[in-house]
Amino acid sequence: MKINVLFTPVIADDLYFTGKTTVVIDVLRASSTIVAALQNGAKEIVPVGTVEFAVKVSGGMFGGQTLLGGERNTKKIEGFALGNSPLEYGQEIVAGKSIILYTTNGTKAIVKAKFSSGLFICAFNNIAAVAKHLVFLDNDIEIQCAGRSNNFSMEDTICAGKLISEIEKINTELSLTDSAKASLALSKSFGRSIFKMLAETEHGKLLFENGFEDDIKYCSKLNSSEVVPYFAGNVIKLLPENGLSLMNEKENIAN
Amino acid sequence: MKINVLFTPVIADDLYFTGKTTVVIDVLRASSTIVAALQNGAKEIVPVGTVEFAVKVSGGMFGGQTLLGGERNTKKIEGFALGNSPLEYGQEIVAGKSIILYTTNGTKAIVKAKFSSGLFICAFNNIAAVAKHLVFLDNDIEIQCAGRSNNFSMEDTICAGKLISEIEKINTELSLTDSAKASLALSKSFGRSIFKMLAETEHGKLLFENGFEDDIKYCSKLNSSEVVPYFAGNVIKLLPENGLSLMNEKENIAN
Repeated sequence: MKINVLFTPVIADDLYFTGKTTVVIDVLRASSTIVAALQNGAKEIVPVGTVEFAVKVSGGMFGGQTLLGGERNTKKIEGFALGNSPLEYGQEIVAGKSIILYTTNGTKAIVKAKFSSGLFICAFNNIAAVAKHLVFLDNDIEIQCAGRSNNFSMEDTICAGKLISEIEKINTELSLTDSAKASLALSKSFGRSIFKMLAETEHGKLLFENGFEDDIKYCSKLNSSEVVPYFAGNVIKLLPENGLSLMNEKENIAN
Repeated sequence: MKINVLFTPVIADDLYFTGKTTVVIDVLRASSTIVAALQNGAKEIVPVGTVEFAVKVSGGMFGGQTLLGGERNTKKIEGFALGNSPLEYGQEIVAGKSIILYTTNGTKAIVKAKFSSGLFICAFNNIAAVAKHLVFLDNDIEIQCAGRSNNFSMEDTICAGKLISEIEKINTELSLTDSAKASLALSKSFGRSIFKMLAETEHGKLLFENGFEDDIKYCSKLNSSEVVPYFAGNVIKLLPENGLSLMNEKENIAN
């Protein structure tokens, strides 16, 4: 199994992903928010590349059961119901809803990788679950870091490194490109305290300044969720088998 | 002093560099070759972005005292006098000559950064000399890694990290972006044996397969040169003061 990491979306064009197995990571905060929303019973997430398209989509499609969510430069967009904080996506708000999501980096990176044959969303919160599924698929993997305005971001890279490390625990026959090796090494150098690392990144500092310390705490929780978000037909849903296993989990807890 | 590292030339456009102090790194092999050529008495290097322009420039300008050098995908270009191996750029070949240089990644990255107010070329061979000059200038720094076909390359990033580490020895008041911190950390993880690291990178493996093991050895020598290549007026020369100090060194050795 070969693994490559793309540090920013600007490296590859849309067609690069055709037929590939891709994982998109935007720790702060789109991928953490998507995991939270699906965990809390959202029907689906519709990632969009522009605010205009978000507004257009929210009008007619999905039978009115939609919520507009997202941010531009960390701030909630005027007229949107929700921002990009995973803490806003509680069960009472999102259960059964279709959420149209626009964010500065993350949803654009997802839309760019739309021609992938399998496209998954990963955050620190669901690394082990995503790793398990990727090992099951046994395909070569492209990890697309959303980055920041087409630049490198430390937190996405370290999340990529931790994902590789998790895959390596199960499949030791990995072939890693330079960028994958670098991600793995960086996750070892900086990954001991994820919260501390996040708080010291460029993006983490900006979120702190804007009062989102609780978001950083939330996004730093390793494997707090079993959700594997899967993009198909332009929407992100739970993997079918993932939905079943989560239901079983809930039943087990209920019993 | 703020330091940022651009892992590939595709992240920033030409105008991004306007008025900035920039260092271009292409360890395998353009920047190592440029250092070698200037060390061995070449009058100047003219980096070009296309093979066609290389041929055009070599015809009329620089009074006939020109040599065409370069490669496409590691191979010497038909009709060119020299390839892109620093070992080809010996004193007997290059002394007094203007060298028109085209390479797959390196010279394009240099040409892209042409609007910088100060543009320097760095390889493992001349890290300490470049670091000393940058500390003297005391400007914010952009380190542009040439990468490979717009992708991340481990060797350029680790060279960037070692350059930052060398600057940090003299100026401890550095402000590092995410990518600069990552480069520094990677240089600590992988930089103990530069030869071994180079041989295991994607580009290093390709050079090995093509018989360039001696080039990798040459490029791995840390601080074997005091040369600081400086780009101005579309050509790369020795810094004036660098030329003087190198002459003094030679005189000292002669005496």
